[in-house]
Amino acid sequence: MSHRSIDSTRLLGRIAELGAIGRDAEGRLVRLAASDSEKLGRDRFVSWLEDAGLEVAVDRIGNIFGIWNGTGGGEKPVMIGSHIDTVINAGIYDGCYGVLAGLEVIQTLKSEGLEPRRPIVVAAFTDEEGVRYAPDMMGSLVYSGGLDVTAALKTVGTDGTVLGDELARIGYAGSRAPGFMTPHAYVELHIEQGPVLEREGVPLGAVENLQGISWQKVTIDGDANHAGTTPISMRRDAGYAAARVITFLRDRAKASNTPTVATVGCIAFEPNAINVIPSRATFTVDLRDPDEDRLKQEETALAAFLELLSAEEGVGVSVERLARFEPVKFDQAIVRQIEAAARDRGLPCKRMTSGAGHDAQMIARIAPGAMIFVPSRGGISHNPKEFTADTELVAGANILLDVICGLATGELPR
Amino acid sequence: MSHRSIDSTRLLGRIAELGAIGRDAEGRLVRLAASDSEKLGRDRFVSWLEDAGLEVAVDRIGNIFGIWNGTGGGEKPVMIGSHIDTVINAGIYDGCYGVLAGLEVIQTLKSEGLEPRRPIVVAAFTDEEGVRYAPDMMGSLVYSGGLDVTAALKTVGTDGTVLGDELARIGYAGSRAPGFMTPHAYVELHIEQGPVLEREGVPLGAVENLQGISWQKVTIDGDANHAGTTPISMRRDAGYAAARVITFLRDRAKASNTPTVATVGCIAFEPNAINVIPSRATFTVDLRDPDEDRLKQEETALAAFLELLSAEEGVGVSVERLARFEPVKFDQAIVRQIEAAARDRGLPCKRMTSGAGHDAQMIARIAPGAMIFVPSRGGISHNPKEFTADTELVAGANILLDVICGLATGELPR
Repeated sequence: MSHRSIDSTRLLGRIAELGAIGRDAEGRLVRLAASDSEKLGRDRFVSWLEDAGLEVAVDRIGNIFGIWNGTGGGEKPVMIGSHIDTVINAGIYDGCYGVLAGLEVIQTLKSEGLEPRRPIVVAAFTDEEGVRYAPDMMGSLVYSGGLDVTAALKTVGTDGTVLGDELARIGYAGSRAPGFMTPHAYVELHIEQGPVLEREGVPLGAVENLQGISWQKVTIDGDANHAGTTPISMRRDAGYAAARVITFLRDRAKASNTPTVATVGCIAFEPNAINVIPSRATFTVDLRDPDEDRLKQEETALAAFLELLSAEEGVGVSVERLARFEPVKFDQAIVRQIEAAARDRGLPCKRMTSGAGHDAQMIARIAPGAMIFVPSRGGISHNPKEFTADTELVAGANILLDVICGLATGELPR
Repeated sequence: MSHRSIDSTRLLGRIAELGAIGRDAEGRLVRLAASDSEKLGRDRFVSWLEDAGLEVAVDRIGNIFGIWNGTGGGEKPVMIGSHIDTVINAGIYDGCYGVLAGLEVIQTLKSEGLEPRRPIVVAAFTDEEGVRYAPDMMGSLVYSGGLDVTAALKTVGTDGTVLGDELARIGYAGSRAPGFMTPHAYVELHIEQGPVLEREGVPLGAVENLQGISWQKVTIDGDANHAGTTPISMRRDAGYAAARVITFLRDRAKASNTPTVATVGCIAFEPNAINVIPSRATFTVDLRDPDEDRLKQEETALAAFLELLSAEEGVGVSVERLARFEPVKFDQAIVRQIEAAARDRGLPCKRMTSGAGHDAQMIARIAPGAMIFVPSRGGISHNPKEFTADTELVAGANILLDVICGLATGELPR
């Protein structure tokens, strides 16, 4: 039994080549959205699209599309997408892998003379990382109608620039209306950015949903008093109260036997002096769960605990909501096609939840979609140590090939 | 029954006057040791010593002494002391109250024609606060032989200056050898800087001991991973481990039914990002107890808990000792004289422990000593809101008057 295969040398070469573009003076990979260095990456990607004979389209928010109409012109396309902007001091796989594998899949099917019933499109969405312009996943959010393009273009960045100006300056303020193609289906191939596949020794993930996210900032107010002269019973210690919230969240998540995760990533005490009881503790709470009801339960449990804490410790508590996204359910048929393709190639595949946000969750608003994950060494991402083995990258791209082929032709994967 | 009394108008006026010296552009009281603004405070204090007809002596570390030899020349003196340097944005009572009450006591006894058997001395020790030059209580530490004066003068400050150069520059690099007078007894009157006297409605504290202090910096190392993609069971969360230490310390101190206090005043997470599990948490531990054995037990319990935590959470733990002082026991006879003086004036007086460090703990190395506390409104100190009512300030100074009179004459207080 023989399978189609992407050109692994070409794919891996392009990942390395794109990963070398946008290095700063210290050698760090920094391709922030719509920056000069990202322009270099965009230009290289567009040149590859042109070399592959694809039609290149850019929409008003700067999303780039490589379109192979082939024999399917006029039908809704099958879309493969991700992003090529990066965080500061990034690895080379996050986003870029999915975009370049998408191009690779189209180029492979095209060179094999496939006659698809639908166009196949590869998309690189603008500003997925959101480091320079908030919110993240902006290009796919605008494309799917979740944010007005005119408003989005006015976004002021962390460096004081305006997104629309910067896109025009680098030559990527396109003319197409975001959403100009409604996908028949959407598939995104991505590194897991978590440790699950590696720890379980499974090379592939069929991502069936994406966690809902609740971000809150909690401020606890007590009294700053002398650490030596204030008896324990007379304290209103904001730092101790914060510590109780941290242990509450973690112990609850651990005991729950659910996929709920809870993280306190940021903290600050005031006045932050060794011999002064903290008068204020400020910290963030990141709650995630693939089930909306359970995520709401967790939020409610936190609120109830904060109320109890306020009474028990005599501290003031205030909560600010920073972000809230409902969980996303991907398309079950596409998830099953991913599993079938893996089975057909004799590769183990795990149904899983995405803990991170991806463009796929935005495009899921307008089209059936799903994601394919490959392992991340040590679960590390957003870091130069981000790593996935070449064999795993190639295996993931071949599964993408099979699934896209099936979606574009109606063939079952083989 | 009539009692001697200090001149309350003069004392309160001087406290206010000294408190107005060294205000910065924002009106904050900032008289850091050996600074230009502290020179102004020293100059005013010296002018008051001269006005009172006292001999002024300055030693090599800049400690200022106002000496009334009176009829007691040649004998070991009774010394009253504290400090006039301040923290940044200080209140007006901390230290200054004790120094100015000491001068007031001498001036009162002198003007009444008392014929003491011993000289009476008021001392203002250099750099008690330690904000500009570490360690704190440096002037009294050097005076009592705990630190070599030559080494102390070489201390480099937080602003890069050298203490010895600064003392010379402001004209307070004296010629007397630190320790040139060995006190017969030492008494320090101070605001409590804690909430106990106010909460208990007692106007006076007879301070019989001073807590031992153990300062440690704890660093916990885990793994920075994505807050969404890393299951709870796969985390090595340094922030959660830190929170467990904070709750352990507080819950243990609260349950102990001892005067032990434990405070975590400083904390930092790395990378301190909302969606990243902390890879590192650094925090300080301030443990205090008036009993050395118990303080050691608390240190041992913390070390054992950190070892357990390291095993349970798979985190690295390292501990750096920042400071360690054994508890100080004051002189029981002087403590009883304070109590007797209060009883004689019909004022409630509570035997208590000092939770803060004071010059008295250093001078206790070379002479019998004790302290008198007056209430601090709300327990607040090191803050412009520091406050003690005038009547309480006057009552404390009169108790000091009685005790010093007794120590200098051999009379019992009345």
